[in-house]
Amino acid sequence: MGIHTFFTSLNDLERIIRAPGRFKFEEHNVAAHSWKVSQYAMFFATIEEMHGATVNWKSLYEKTINHDFAEVFIGDIKTPVKHASPKLKEMLTIVEEKMMEKFIEEEIPSEFQAVFFDRMKEGKDSTLEGRLLEFADKLDQFYEAFAELKRGNTDKEFVIMYQSAVAKLLDLPLPNSVHYFRHEILSDAMAEDTQIDIVTLTEEILKNK
Amino acid sequence: MGIHTFFTSLNDLERIIRAPGRFKFEEHNVAAHSWKVSQYAMFFATIEEMHGATVNWKSLYEKTINHDFAEVFIGDIKTPVKHASPKLKEMLTIVEEKMMEKFIEEEIPSEFQAVFFDRMKEGKDSTLEGRLLEFADKLDQFYEAFAELKRGNTDKEFVIMYQSAVAKLLDLPLPNSVHYFRHEILSDAMAEDTQIDIVTLTEEILKNK
Amino acid sequence: MGIHTFFTSLNDLERIIRAPGRFKFEEHNVAAHSWKVSQYAMFFATIEEMHGATVNWKSLYEKTINHDFAEVFIGDIKTPVKHASPKLKEMLTIVEEKMMEKFIEEEIPSEFQAVFFDRMKEGKDSTLEGRLLEFADKLDQFYEAFAELKRGNTDKEFVIMYQSAVAKLLDLPLPNSVHYFRHEILSDAMAEDTQIDIVTLTEEILKNK
Amino acid sequence: MGIHTFFTSLNDLERIIRAPGRFKFEEHNVAAHSWKVSQYAMFFATIEEMHGATVNWKSLYEKTINHDFAEVFIGDIKTPVKHASPKLKEMLTIVEEKMMEKFIEEEIPSEFQAVFFDRMKEGKDSTLEGRLLEFADKLDQFYEAFAELKRGNTDKEFVIMYQSAVAKLLDLPLPNSVHYFRHEILSDAMAEDTQIDIVTLTEEILKNK
Amino acid sequence: MGIHTFFTSLNDLERIIRAPGRFKFEEHNVAAHSWKVSQYAMFFATIEEMHGATVNWKSLYEKTINHDFAEVFIGDIKTPVKHASPKLKEMLTIVEEKMMEKFIEEEIPSEFQAVFFDRMKEGKDSTLEGRLLEFADKLDQFYEAFAELKRGNTDKEFVIMYQSAVAKLLDLPLPNSVHYFRHEILSDAMAEDTQIDIVTLTEEILKNK
Amino acid sequence: MGIHTFFTSLNDLERIIRAPGRFKFEEHNVAAHSWKVSQYAMFFATIEEMHGATVNWKSLYEKTINHDFAEVFIGDIKTPVKHASPKLKEMLTIVEEKMMEKFIEEEIPSEFQAVFFDRMKEGKDSTLEGRLLEFADKLDQFYEAFAELKRGNTDKEFVIMYQSAVAKLLDLPLPNSVHYFRHEILSDAMAEDTQIDIVTLTEEILKNK
Repeated sequence: MGIHTFFTSLNDLERIIRAPGRFKFEEHNVAAHSWKVSQYAMFFATIEEMHGATVNWKSLYEKTINHDFAEVFIGDIKTPVKHASPKLKEMLTIVEEKMMEKFIEEEIPSEFQAVFFDRMKEGKDSTLEGRLLEFADKLDQFYEAFAELKRGNTDKEFVIMYQSAVAKLLDLPLPNSVHYFRHEILSDAMAEDTQIDIVTLTEEILKNK
Repeated sequence: MGIHTFFTSLNDLERIIRAPGRFKFEEHNVAAHSWKVSQYAMFFATIEEMHGATVNWKSLYEKTINHDFAEVFIGDIKTPVKHASPKLKEMLTIVEEKMMEKFIEEEIPSEFQAVFFDRMKEGKDSTLEGRLLEFADKLDQFYEAFAELKRGNTDKEFVIMYQSAVAKLLDLPLPNSVHYFRHEILSDAMAEDTQIDIVTLTEEILKNK
Repeated sequence: MGIHTFFTSLNDLERIIRAPGRFKFEEHNVAAHSWKVSQYAMFFATIEEMHGATVNWKSLYEKTINHDFAEVFIGDIKTPVKHASPKLKEMLTIVEEKMMEKFIEEEIPSEFQAVFFDRMKEGKDSTLEGRLLEFADKLDQFYEAFAELKRGNTDKEFVIMYQSAVAKLLDLPLPNSVHYFRHEILSDAMAEDTQIDIVTLTEEILKNK
Repeated sequence: MGIHTFFTSLNDLERIIRAPGRFKFEEHNVAAHSWKVSQYAMFFATIEEMHGATVNWKSLYEKTINHDFAEVFIGDIKTPVKHASPKLKEMLTIVEEKMMEKFIEEEIPSEFQAVFFDRMKEGKDSTLEGRLLEFADKLDQFYEAFAELKRGNTDKEFVIMYQSAVAKLLDLPLPNSVHYFRHEILSDAMAEDTQIDIVTLTEEILKNK
Repeated sequence: MGIHTFFTSLNDLERIIRAPGRFKFEEHNVAAHSWKVSQYAMFFATIEEMHGATVNWKSLYEKTINHDFAEVFIGDIKTPVKHASPKLKEMLTIVEEKMMEKFIEEEIPSEFQAVFFDRMKEGKDSTLEGRLLEFADKLDQFYEAFAELKRGNTDKEFVIMYQSAVAKLLDLPLPNSVHYFRHEILSDAMAEDTQIDIVTLTEEILKNK
Repeated sequence: MGIHTFFTSLNDLERIIRAPGRFKFEEHNVAAHSWKVSQYAMFFATIEEMHGATVNWKSLYEKTINHDFAEVFIGDIKTPVKHASPKLKEMLTIVEEKMMEKFIEEEIPSEFQAVFFDRMKEGKDSTLEGRLLEFADKLDQFYEAFAELKRGNTDKEFVIMYQSAVAKLLDLPLPNSVHYFRHEILSDAMAEDTQIDIVTLTEEILKNK
């Protein structure tokens, strides 16, 4: 028991693969994903700040780097699951949360338990930082799907994953970030030369917005 | 929908890694594991038959090759989980079973649904074949742990995994198979030159039996 | 010497790659291939049984899980070989069989040698189970080629592999299985969105039947 | 040009391997390393805060997630280099910095260039956050070497890497973090069962402090 | 110190990946690349000899197998670098050469140092063998890009890499080799069925020659 | 048909793994192995030349880089085979040679066929260069086994592989190279810190010489 156990478990997250068995061109581990989310979030927080928002950088830092730590217990199984009802996904969430609790109680020294409970709780709340986390996490789904489609993965799952990421990003309550995504990121992505027709997939979503 | 979907999902099981992030020397996928279990089970069923038992080979064939198919939905997460209470493991089992049901209802043509429900149900029952499945599945845990310890994986998890597999194998209600395991397999394994001291680990278990 | 040696050699088959150097998108090991063959065979045996045939399930189980065990000695070299005459392939088969013999004589305890000689002999005979093994083995060639073509492997070898698998499957003396393959599996496969034009490749074969 | 280019370059860092060709048991990519550094830094910043320090969390967040971004240009070549004089290492640093400059000028929209120049500059300065970055980066060297030695990598390079990490960590001007490392982390690490004798390696360093 | 150190460093070159993070379909290590260059060079030296040239085979052998040995120090970083000015590339070359010098002085026994300095110096000089090395090295760039484009890598970098390799090969002062490349190799390559339109990419270059 | 086919087959050799399923720490492909053999051979040819021998460098170059090309057809199956009698190994050699012949006749343009038949024939003859090839090939077996034993692979196969390589190297009819190997290479190798006791394994061989 001790922080040493927590630190060595970070290493395990380098071996936990996202959506195992789904990606055909590039695999992603949970550690690298968390880093990319922390990068996207920092950029969009900067956008929001430039438009007058006050960012709680400590909170954003905590939320982004810890948001998938619980996958050390059961891997990344909620994203790829096709045949799960909302109720089944909720059960998985409960299992994950309970394991997180047991981990903190059993491994983290008592003087740090309160801090860890706070940092490891679900971060996607209605605060600016919670919304930025959700935006950044969804943006990585966008980029993971984009990378597969760009190289010609014809699996319908990735079309759905791509379109659902775009649709959700456009709907998130972060007008400045959404505007930047739509008018800068998305148009640069659509300008790339891709195997699967990204332009059409994207426009199908845009016309409904 | 159709058997084509089932057949392509078999391919996914080649990409589902057992206990992701735990094995340091050799990874195992669920497809290959299922094959090894079907091999062990055939051998020990032969032992039981030589001692007078009547084996239902069709049932054994069905049980062994299908026993981990449900891992296509949520991966292999029950084995490695350290911080799960029995109740949390049970919740995971329920989630897996419900997804299996939805899969059969949504993907398998109606004329085969009864057959699939029967084949995909939990196979580790009290029949001879159910016990042989449990024996064979545990034997693969024994061999997976053995391969890590042999090469010097010092992770305590594998010591526990090895010793618990030996202890459970010796307790299974299959006297002839257990006898063969104890007096042939185990003594050959202990005679190997290994990095971690397998002999001591094994004798700690044997002396309690 | 002993069954322990046989069991550890199963593990080696997880590291023997099929057609090494040929697959560009997904590699397959011999253990996982054997499992998939045992799955296909069980399904088509069910089809045959539904149409009135009597299946020897023990024999089918033995044939499917053991049919490529001998590749532990020289790997999977007969499938990919382009420049081999039938005579050279026959020589390779002889080498493989002789090694199998030596393995059984040197490693398998005498009381099991007869069983192993029986289980490890060439399984593709004219019995229903022998034909189902051939059907299932060919079906995995079909699915392995399909997975490459679907993702855009333009290597002509895979076009040939795909078309030859379809042609041979349609010609096997298992009318009910062939009918199901042609009218269900093949039409579902052709309905998929693929990089290489599977429909045309398939119809070139179908029009000659 | 645009933030889209920056975001897709994050993905490249998942493919950039640390100290290529050196790690024998577990490879690490730069993206995952950066995340682990951001985790360690957050923990030790918490320790410092508990002892009365004021942490600039935004700065720490920026420094940790960006500190190795420049490796996207020339990979991780400064760590493993054995035959480099300090002068050669300095030349490599200059090359890296110049490429970083050109990247920002060529790819980052002008309204964000100042922010990027600030975030991408060398972070290991004398501020609390700069020292925490250095501490966290060194701690990952400690853990990377520890993981190799634990499993029996006998390469002298890792002994040197381990001992130099311990020595440097103990000397960093962060008394509270150093104290926690020495009395908690290090004693837990030394209590682990390892292939290479970590205790002796560690005590050789400790006795000189 | 000693030739043993040199020999074990050859093994390191099997783990040094070319252009890390760029190839999407097939990675190449520096050892295998060096072997392919030695094969191409032998073939084109044969062509030149057939047309009357006198080949210094010892020199060609030395130049081809040693030309990338220095990558053991800093990996393959000059090829992929996008944001490097010629001056930065020159700095990297100097760093590499200085490390090579230090390596020879520190590791190679004195009686072999002169031989090693001679073999490890830049081989792409104006001799026939120097030009054949450059031709062969460029041809591997051609084949590495070809293999990616053939399978549908849409990254513009590979289009540029392919076209620049073709352009440079056609301009090298080896008329017989260039003629053979243009009229045999290139026409066979263009006749292949490829995902990216190789014919158009090639003709864009040919029409300017 | 054409040299383009030969050149693309070189790429296949990067995917052909030596002794598939046997190496536990580092895999080797045939392309990289061929390069290392060409390096060792150049060094020992230099030793022989320093002692007055006349080296045919062209022949040595041809022999070393081509000596395993035929493995493109059936992989590396002769080395690992445990259960093969000499007669079975001879049959495999014949198969390989016949495929090589067919390849040259079917793929190599007629004006180069004589050259290719000469270069691709068995190179381990009694010439100085033939003996250097055998020495270098055996030395790579020595280094491949050494690398496994150094890291703690306890598989007896590698002990046998190591000791048989040492024994054969000491017996080869190249006194100067053997002397250098015994007194320089071997003593440096024995001075390394290794998991498996290399010194004892080596001395068991040396005392019989």
